[in-house]
Amino acid sequence: MEQVDKLIELSYALDTFYFLISGAFVMWMAAGFAMLEAGLVRAKNTTEILTKNVALFAIACTMYMLCGYNFMYPAEAVNSIWPGMSFLLGEDHTAADVLKSNGDTYYSTMADFFFQVVFVATAMSIVSGAVAERMKLWAFLVFSVVMTGFIYPIQGYWKWGAGFLDQLGFLDFAGSGVVHLCGATAALAGVILLGARKGKYGPNGEIHPIPGCNMPLATLGMFILWLGWFGFNGGSELKISDIGEANAVALVFVNTNAAAAGGVISALFTAHLLFGKADLSMTLNGALAGLVAITAEPLTPTPLLAAVIGVIAGIIVVFSIIGLDKLKIDDPVGAISVHGVVGIWGLLAVCFSNPDATIVAQLIGIATIFGFVFVASLISWFVIKAVMGIRVTEEEEYAGVDYSECGMEAYPEFTNSGK
Amino acid sequence: MEQVDKLIELSYALDTFYFLISGAFVMWMAAGFAMLEAGLVRAKNTTEILTKNVALFAIACTMYMLCGYNFMYPAEAVNSIWPGMSFLLGEDHTAADVLKSNGDTYYSTMADFFFQVVFVATAMSIVSGAVAERMKLWAFLVFSVVMTGFIYPIQGYWKWGAGFLDQLGFLDFAGSGVVHLCGATAALAGVILLGARKGKYGPNGEIHPIPGCNMPLATLGMFILWLGWFGFNGGSELKISDIGEANAVALVFVNTNAAAAGGVISALFTAHLLFGKADLSMTLNGALAGLVAITAEPLTPTPLLAAVIGVIAGIIVVFSIIGLDKLKIDDPVGAISVHGVVGIWGLLAVCFSNPDATIVAQLIGIATIFGFVFVASLISWFVIKAVMGIRVTEEEEYAGVDYSECGMEAYPEFTNSGK
Amino acid sequence: MEQVDKLIELSYALDTFYFLISGAFVMWMAAGFAMLEAGLVRAKNTTEILTKNVALFAIACTMYMLCGYNFMYPAEAVNSIWPGMSFLLGEDHTAADVLKSNGDTYYSTMADFFFQVVFVATAMSIVSGAVAERMKLWAFLVFSVVMTGFIYPIQGYWKWGAGFLDQLGFLDFAGSGVVHLCGATAALAGVILLGARKGKYGPNGEIHPIPGCNMPLATLGMFILWLGWFGFNGGSELKISDIGEANAVALVFVNTNAAAAGGVISALFTAHLLFGKADLSMTLNGALAGLVAITAEPLTPTPLLAAVIGVIAGIIVVFSIIGLDKLKIDDPVGAISVHGVVGIWGLLAVCFSNPDATIVAQLIGIATIFGFVFVASLISWFVIKAVMGIRVTEEEEYAGVDYSECGMEAYPEFTNSGK
Repeated sequence: MEQVDKLIELSYALDTFYFLISGAFVMWMAAGFAMLEAGLVRAKNTTEILTKNVALFAIACTMYMLCGYNFMYPAEAVNSIWPGMSFLLGEDHTAADVLKSNGDTYYSTMADFFFQVVFVATAMSIVSGAVAERMKLWAFLVFSVVMTGFIYPIQGYWKWGAGFLDQLGFLDFAGSGVVHLCGATAALAGVILLGARKGKYGPNGEIHPIPGCNMPLATLGMFILWLGWFGFNGGSELKISDIGEANAVALVFVNTNAAAAGGVISALFTAHLLFGKADLSMTLNGALAGLVAITAEPLTPTPLLAAVIGVIAGIIVVFSIIGLDKLKIDDPVGAISVHGVVGIWGLLAVCFSNPDATIVAQLIGIATIFGFVFVASLISWFVIKAVMGIRVTEEEEYAGVDYSECGMEAYPEFTNSGK
Repeated sequence: MEQVDKLIELSYALDTFYFLISGAFVMWMAAGFAMLEAGLVRAKNTTEILTKNVALFAIACTMYMLCGYNFMYPAEAVNSIWPGMSFLLGEDHTAADVLKSNGDTYYSTMADFFFQVVFVATAMSIVSGAVAERMKLWAFLVFSVVMTGFIYPIQGYWKWGAGFLDQLGFLDFAGSGVVHLCGATAALAGVILLGARKGKYGPNGEIHPIPGCNMPLATLGMFILWLGWFGFNGGSELKISDIGEANAVALVFVNTNAAAAGGVISALFTAHLLFGKADLSMTLNGALAGLVAITAEPLTPTPLLAAVIGVIAGIIVVFSIIGLDKLKIDDPVGAISVHGVVGIWGLLAVCFSNPDATIVAQLIGIATIFGFVFVASLISWFVIKAVMGIRVTEEEEYAGVDYSECGMEAYPEFTNSGK
Repeated sequence: MEQVDKLIELSYALDTFYFLISGAFVMWMAAGFAMLEAGLVRAKNTTEILTKNVALFAIACTMYMLCGYNFMYPAEAVNSIWPGMSFLLGEDHTAADVLKSNGDTYYSTMADFFFQVVFVATAMSIVSGAVAERMKLWAFLVFSVVMTGFIYPIQGYWKWGAGFLDQLGFLDFAGSGVVHLCGATAALAGVILLGARKGKYGPNGEIHPIPGCNMPLATLGMFILWLGWFGFNGGSELKISDIGEANAVALVFVNTNAAAAGGVISALFTAHLLFGKADLSMTLNGALAGLVAITAEPLTPTPLLAAVIGVIAGIIVVFSIIGLDKLKIDDPVGAISVHGVVGIWGLLAVCFSNPDATIVAQLIGIATIFGFVFVASLISWFVIKAVMGIRVTEEEEYAGVDYSECGMEAYPEFTNSGK
């Protein structure tokens, strides 16, 4: 009898540990977004984007602790649309309860919170890149309070909190929709209200590329994200402590890696065909596109199919970035394409390998997340704009937001441009 | 019977694995300190600070293997103040001994050594930032031999080796005192003997800010440290293999994260109130302050209290950095404030949540660590100064220590200043 | 009965998890090589080396999935030299099979693939540094297809796939030969065909040092590799789920760390004795040399012997780098010395601690890997050269390969040299 209990205890410990390590990998993605975005903006806007990334992570962790987690995973939901409101984290499971459940309760609530909280931060990090180089710092931070405390958790509840999207059969394993499309949609709403950077689009429809100032940093950011994604997707299996679950987590790792690799290769080739050069920023976005696409379903494809899903994602992302630029939707890092457009592709691609998926349910999920997040974000951005303004002045933008917002340069000894 | 043994074996394996992964995360903090410090100094002193950080890690690992580990965790201590002397690592537990202990011996000695050795390196890394831009490389390395082989292990023995501070009831879960205050105190002694950088303080009491040359690097360093801290604090629970321990480790992760987030938010606000700008370096130090503060007791607070402890730490660190500058204690990266002043705050804050803590025992611990490390370090620095000198010449300092100490520039193609 | 099964399941889950985390650490080494190499080349060649590193990782993952894994670990080998050909990954173990094996089948095949695939990428990453700053991007990528799909797996089969080198008693725990010597040998063949960078060697035999443009990046790369190596060597024990195995993994961690530390210290001293300066790039290569040297046998030495093996590696690498330069073998990052020359040292050093090793078997292994990889690579490079050329034009090299190959600068706002 005692040995049965000890087995349950060990199993609980292993699953909790697996959760915590997965969460730590996802937390590391915050550094990835910070480096990616800092590498892809101009030197004069670097301190500010770093500050945003650090601050949004802190805000996300705090808001999700204060209310977001309870909204997304309510103890007792009001109904399948409205989770009800409760605040602060409760107690963890007691050993007695775990043993009484005979192992059905198989990991720590605090570990679950830790894993979930770093997901919120990921969604919010997506926004910061798209609005870079012209949005006011404090306006952005106010939005991040709304997004991480309310918008993200409510739509998250609809799927992962067992709300109506889940009941409808919408499938989203690790968040191509709940996290990536959500973040990209909030970014799109912000970008539309904010407008393009000065000088990005000429009066006669010309598009002026604005190169990022530090490509090694952007590459480092991409590698950090790739690494972190093993926690993101691998941890989303939620359990590893038996043979079937361990095999599942292993397959998720392999498929996540295969899709990213596929995205790199196809984006590199596509850019080469279009531009005649091996475009590094497109290649980096290809990797991220592969990762976003496989996130909706990294478990049911074979590795070869996962690679193909990534290959298609890498092609989509190149054309999407070009297309958004034609529409004058100015997204300095390509976040809307990588996380939004490719997120939709990932959600649709679930139908290729998971027999439980239906195209209708996937489309309803996409429309719901996009519609809700877009409207809620647009209202939030609009109110923030009315109250405090969301865009820096033209002079501040020209001088770089590092001066006006942070009062310090990122590279005071290196640059002699942009001042 | 055999199944009981197999359970003990699995449990031992899980705890050992948890220890090793935690240790690897802490080892990663060495990169964090290197990047943080390289980002916050001027370009002309970057190669040298990188060399110091790489070399100190190597020296710490070697000295702790040769003698430090045995001083800190003696097989048979002479008394509660003097651990006695022995050298080199012994054999690991045999399977037979572990099974005979019925699981009381629950993890590998080598894993314990690995976890402990990266802590020593952390303590030493704290020093390198504070003495940056003017200390001789080899003087620093000689001090690191003394610090990691002797000073750190002896005071570490008093608490974690079950010496007199432990017997007095001094509480320090993961080392706000044993690691952070210890490192900051050694740094303070060095800075006092060394003096400020040329040009930092004007003849009429003006303070000239010397901005760091690479803020993305400093931000990366902060994120690396934040990630590594999950190993630092999470691993210090020392066991994860049952429900209670797994919950404890999970709570430590959540609280560590909450405190860091709190520190970011409060330092950002405090700096904004004081300077009118969102100061990135203060924000980074706010995160680290939150992490240092929660390190003394990450297990007994609720997440909300952990966040509050971090919030207060973030305020303290801003005022401490300003205050030390007024005292003309020149610490280029703020290490004495972050690890020392906030380390003390963390040790005192244990009393808010842990009923076993007493303010008297905490104060005795603080005074003992500070007093011993300060005197021992001052003597060591003094002897090193007498024998080989600790400060580069004024010409070398003006030209940058990279030339005089390392013979190479960190950014040969980027800078046109400082030469 | 059921409890026995549950024990096997838990054990399988722990070993699989250990494998996946180890693999994730090794995957992270891809970022390490990218940063190390980007830091050690000139600014004008940085985008291209980053693109190479990202693309080669993707190609390695794809080719190894398509055929390499099956060549290296064939289900049924034709004979001990030729593994036969089969394609794509098969199914993972079923729970029933694992239970029937009574735990002899103890981890997921997919986890094994994931761990192995990141090793291939490591071998290929070694090549990119040595041929930096003058090789055509697409020529390099074509070679990486051949290397990761065929050359690496075939020689890998001879040792780790139980081929003839394994049967001869050749010992190589984690790949000083199979991975590091293999990569360095392929690099050597490429460098010989490619020739030195313009301006590196003067007409009268002078050697002109070409300093790397970003030493913090190179240092970061080294730290990433050091961290990743805990997965590389630690994971190569292949099992952690009992007391003996857990102790073994822990010892591997400690020895890996001790050897790296030893390499740092000796390279720092050696460079100081030779040049009078604390040379950071030699120190970084010293760390990597220690790591490469201990990789052939991190389990049987004591930590002190591991440190000594690292110390000797750190001395060897300095003299090897100087020596190769005298031979006009131009290797911008020292990869051939670090991974090749020191890899041989590591393979020979196995004889000091492992009683099963024989100097004859080690020499046969070294000669076989070197001979096969050199010939196969030389032929491959030669064919690629004949078909598409392997070297950029002199004008392109002078302008920097970033323009000609990638069409974008790595640091567009920072540099005013090298154009």
